[in-house]
Amino acid sequence: MAEKGLFITFEGVEGSGKSTQARRLFDALDLAGFPVILSREPGGTPIGEAVREILINPEYKEMDPLTETFLFAAARRQHVQQVILPQLERGGIVICDRFYDATTAYQAFGHEIPLQDVEDINAMCAWGAKPDVTVYLDIDVERGLQRVRQRYAKNGGVLDRLERLGPEFFERVAEGYEYAIAQGGSRFVLVNADREEDSVSESVMEAVHPHLLQRYPKQCVSLEMLGI
Amino acid sequence: MAEKGLFITFEGVEGSGKSTQARRLFDALDLAGFPVILSREPGGTPIGEAVREILINPEYKEMDPLTETFLFAAARRQHVQQVILPQLERGGIVICDRFYDATTAYQAFGHEIPLQDVEDINAMCAWGAKPDVTVYLDIDVERGLQRVRQRYAKNGGVLDRLERLGPEFFERVAEGYEYAIAQGGSRFVLVNADREEDSVSESVMEAVHPHLLQRYPKQCVSLEMLGI
Repeated sequence: MAEKGLFITFEGVEGSGKSTQARRLFDALDLAGFPVILSREPGGTPIGEAVREILINPEYKEMDPLTETFLFAAARRQHVQQVILPQLERGGIVICDRFYDATTAYQAFGHEIPLQDVEDINAMCAWGAKPDVTVYLDIDVERGLQRVRQRYAKNGGVLDRLERLGPEFFERVAEGYEYAIAQGGSRFVLVNADREEDSVSESVMEAVHPHLLQRYPKQCVSLEMLGI
Repeated sequence: MAEKGLFITFEGVEGSGKSTQARRLFDALDLAGFPVILSREPGGTPIGEAVREILINPEYKEMDPLTETFLFAAARRQHVQQVILPQLERGGIVICDRFYDATTAYQAFGHEIPLQDVEDINAMCAWGAKPDVTVYLDIDVERGLQRVRQRYAKNGGVLDRLERLGPEFFERVAEGYEYAIAQGGSRFVLVNADREEDSVSESVMEAVHPHLLQRYPKQCVSLEMLGI
């Protein structure tokens, strides 16, 4: 679907720095004059954000994993239809904090919902939208969870419902990402995320740069312009 | 799944009187001492009711039909897991205002989402729960919509997002119910709903009575005890 635009997703386990790195890439591309939007899943639309509120509500301890899967699917479908496809069709760039690989990792592997069911649901809700580049921020599960705990210790606040799940769950999520990476092939770029934010950003920019050159040959920018 | 209990669903187009008739059946069975619960879809659980709020919010005019389908599926899965199956396993009766036939009728036929996708989603979220009896309250689409409009004219309030769809949509919904009835076979009982509430109730009780006799032979009640 993304013939005209460029669809970039960020994936990784908890504490891998996805949101920070997605924001940094957005800021760099925006500053360089690219038509770029930053979005996230679940969310990205008013309906999706309402669904997100249900998903992260720590009071809903009773939420069934398949219920959770359908809620993610609802938010994604709305996001694809209302935001992602229109932006790509306009020739723009979409940077998205999580997309369907997260459903494979968290729901099929983490919650052990049959993989075929999850893949069927993913195919239905993506409606042909497929990331051109998926940046996988690679970090040990334990190290990532440690970073999440430090963040909460520093900023206060409570862990949301998903983040309260145990370490075995997140080990399965990491296996799920390994599976997605094996299936996804060249669309994935693995970046070592257990480094300073600036170093991680540099690697992300280097990974994205060839795609910018290819898709926007007339508007091309040097790595220096992207702050590297 | 419902070897021990009895699972009764109500279906029909807008204005067919489902909610009223489901409530009347519940009141009669409850009064007669049966272990019965009344529920509804979307809803039936705290999570499901939160999803319902999104579904009926008239501000969300942009909601994609597949988003809607996934939201119904999320509410249903939670309802099945948290309410319906536990009640049936305890040997109780579940009366539910709408179940998966509504998804076939509204989403596959009304919104013209591919039938196979809707049936796959229905199968995933029902998790083996299957109605023993489905009371279809039969009424002309136009007559039903007229009753809905009269109700609003009398009570005030605004039509919710679903009820604002046009008559062609509801004609397709009626076709969808015809399809579901053809597929569902003997589980369906068709009741003429274009009559006084009391007459409709009598027909509903007569339809349910043989199932009560069969499932609860020791606790059996006469039609008189059910108010007929």
